[in-house]
Amino acid sequence: MTTADEVIEVARRSRSAAIGLARLPRAKKDAALQAMADALVAATDDVLKANADDLARGRDNGMAEGMLDRLALDEKRVAAMADGLRQVAGLPDPVGEVVRGSTLPNGLQLRQVRVPLGVVGIIYEARPNVTVDAAGLCIKSGNAVLLRGSSSARSSNAALVDVLAAAGSAAGLPDYAVQLVPGVDHESTKHLMRARGHVDVLIPRGGAGLIRSVVEESTVPVIETGVGNCHVYVDADADLDMALDITINAKVQRPSVCNAAETLLVHRAVADEFLPRVLAALHDNGVTVHGDDAVTKAASAHDVGGVVPVTDDDWAAEYNSLDLAVGVVDSLDDAIGHIRRWGSGHTEAIVTRSLDASQAFVLGLDSAAVMVNASTRFTDGEQFGFGAEIGISTQKLHARGPMGLPELTSTTWVVHGDGHVRS
Amino acid sequence: MTTADEVIEVARRSRSAAIGLARLPRAKKDAALQAMADALVAATDDVLKANADDLARGRDNGMAEGMLDRLALDEKRVAAMADGLRQVAGLPDPVGEVVRGSTLPNGLQLRQVRVPLGVVGIIYEARPNVTVDAAGLCIKSGNAVLLRGSSSARSSNAALVDVLAAAGSAAGLPDYAVQLVPGVDHESTKHLMRARGHVDVLIPRGGAGLIRSVVEESTVPVIETGVGNCHVYVDADADLDMALDITINAKVQRPSVCNAAETLLVHRAVADEFLPRVLAALHDNGVTVHGDDAVTKAASAHDVGGVVPVTDDDWAAEYNSLDLAVGVVDSLDDAIGHIRRWGSGHTEAIVTRSLDASQAFVLGLDSAAVMVNASTRFTDGEQFGFGAEIGISTQKLHARGPMGLPELTSTTWVVHGDGHVRS
Repeated sequence: MTTADEVIEVARRSRSAAIGLARLPRAKKDAALQAMADALVAATDDVLKANADDLARGRDNGMAEGMLDRLALDEKRVAAMADGLRQVAGLPDPVGEVVRGSTLPNGLQLRQVRVPLGVVGIIYEARPNVTVDAAGLCIKSGNAVLLRGSSSARSSNAALVDVLAAAGSAAGLPDYAVQLVPGVDHESTKHLMRARGHVDVLIPRGGAGLIRSVVEESTVPVIETGVGNCHVYVDADADLDMALDITINAKVQRPSVCNAAETLLVHRAVADEFLPRVLAALHDNGVTVHGDDAVTKAASAHDVGGVVPVTDDDWAAEYNSLDLAVGVVDSLDDAIGHIRRWGSGHTEAIVTRSLDASQAFVLGLDSAAVMVNASTRFTDGEQFGFGAEIGISTQKLHARGPMGLPELTSTTWVVHGDGHVRS
Repeated sequence: MTTADEVIEVARRSRSAAIGLARLPRAKKDAALQAMADALVAATDDVLKANADDLARGRDNGMAEGMLDRLALDEKRVAAMADGLRQVAGLPDPVGEVVRGSTLPNGLQLRQVRVPLGVVGIIYEARPNVTVDAAGLCIKSGNAVLLRGSSSARSSNAALVDVLAAAGSAAGLPDYAVQLVPGVDHESTKHLMRARGHVDVLIPRGGAGLIRSVVEESTVPVIETGVGNCHVYVDADADLDMALDITINAKVQRPSVCNAAETLLVHRAVADEFLPRVLAALHDNGVTVHGDDAVTKAASAHDVGGVVPVTDDDWAAEYNSLDLAVGVVDSLDDAIGHIRRWGSGHTEAIVTRSLDASQAFVLGLDSAAVMVNASTRFTDGEQFGFGAEIGISTQKLHARGPMGLPELTSTTWVVHGDGHVRS
């Protein structure tokens, strides 16, 4: 069983690395990221061997095919991880950016400057690419990273961190800039979550259960990410062709991700015209519709595929699959009320030609992102032009929506005086 | 004993108020703040009557004189609270500010817009003026506020909230915009701290013990405020007259507050010259010096007052009194190491004429504010020109240093497209 002392000891090393990292100029961090990318490609065989161990253990433990696929690496996936590091090297350095500044009437000169957070802990599930992505983003933003991956990926993660840490140190990063949390038992995670003062922030990446448990148990500040019960609302004034395209794109283009739509709400005024079309298109795309009474009637009247009766669990669900809850609402306000009640505050889209409706929808909701006449799938760091993303925050503190490099920083006030004292 | 249901019920009312508050334009919020200020002055007698009950109970319970003074209200203090509300009315509204924006290559139009946090919980100790200050800042930033004051101020707080809530509602604020958390027992606080989803952020204001317990127990996101073990470092290249002024100001001008200095570190190169002067001045100002060996020797050699031997507890202490830990360090790096080990990350000051030293000090530390040739006492929302302050954050997420109105907001991404879908 992993002890608190073991975890704290490793976190202390991260802290010493963080102090050095905070002072590194961009050029050195970028050179290290390039060296890490090269080393990763050179070590492909070792990484794949370690990954084969994980896969064999997964199969022995009866891991589902989908999970095995997420866990599996090949030459191409390793190369893609290395490319990710090179891409991060090309992004601007957030550290040192002056966010605000002024000279006060008494002559004091104020600057609010971006600084690294310090030690960033990441708790994540199966996919080993997160190991490399998170390490790259943390290094670039001047943070030491403490990685707590899934036990099912432990051999892959250990091999990846070995390569990254050695290459980073050789290229001039402080030692211990990239570390794994010791242990793969629950105690290991627990001690990480209680390491307040040693770890500056924890970012959980994974399913709703993982995120909830981190939020509940952690005394280290947490950035909650990723649970997405996203809605598309088709307004009375919608362009129905556009509504059809957006609905299908939001649901079908990549159903496993957090910015995919999970619920479609249709204004009653256009339900008779829109429902037969959208139900047929959803059916053609293999989507299982969980519908309310109006939807069920429309489906049977127009013979456009079976509808499963919707339940409260469906309205609350983040399916991450080819399922969609569909309902008819009497008004824009009802749509807003429904989303406020059942949504997770991730992304909601309205399709409308009405300026009033679009503004009421934006003002009435309380989500990280609101799309007007665009697919929910656009809530994404790369799509927003951030170049990379550590996750999508659904909480309101610190960062909300896609988190890029600036969201991995804090700020400090630097104040210059000339002997100023308060009177 | 207060039940979870009672607290949640009140928080739900706050949520309904928050939805209305988020849409209120500045003019309506300002008018309500002015009306609340007028009502407060008009209700002075009632407020003072309630305050007398608190004071009587405090005396019966043997409350210390200092605490009684913090609790006591008079006509002037009530008028000052009302003036505070009027001052907040005069500040710019952070809600609706566009923080960032761009048009993506595909034509999507992105705006990141400030929105209220929603429901803000404040847990605080004796002083009833916090009730009015916090209510004013939360209303101005479009948030509903849930106040959990000290049980010793319960009558004063109830009277103040009655006045504010009634005047606010009459002036057009949604009902329940300003509420007290029901109950004055520990259960009441506990349920507030577990009301994740109902309360968006908790801000504890008070002593280290209160803040630690909130940080440990809360599942609602917390902004840690105010523990200040602030340092003044007198460098080898310091102007010693300036160093003397800054040290005395930082320690003596208002010792009870979080930005007062608690430790003085003196470079060995100037210790012989500076220590006799600063020790004499500290002594003249009634300061008890907790010194290391070098300080003790200097004091006795120059007969400038007694020195209490310093302990590790002193280096860690936030005295909030006329006590000061004083030590001699061999180098700037030793000063940085000392501050990193013992500091609370609030504010540190360096006195130096050396540009190199000032830059090394700024880069080497990890505090909310670093002063170069200025007193630590300047870390303050009013001093920084924010107009008002809800507290001083010593954590790294969301806000760091003095928190004004923008720090009481989150952001949302508003994205406009023209039928955009992802390919």
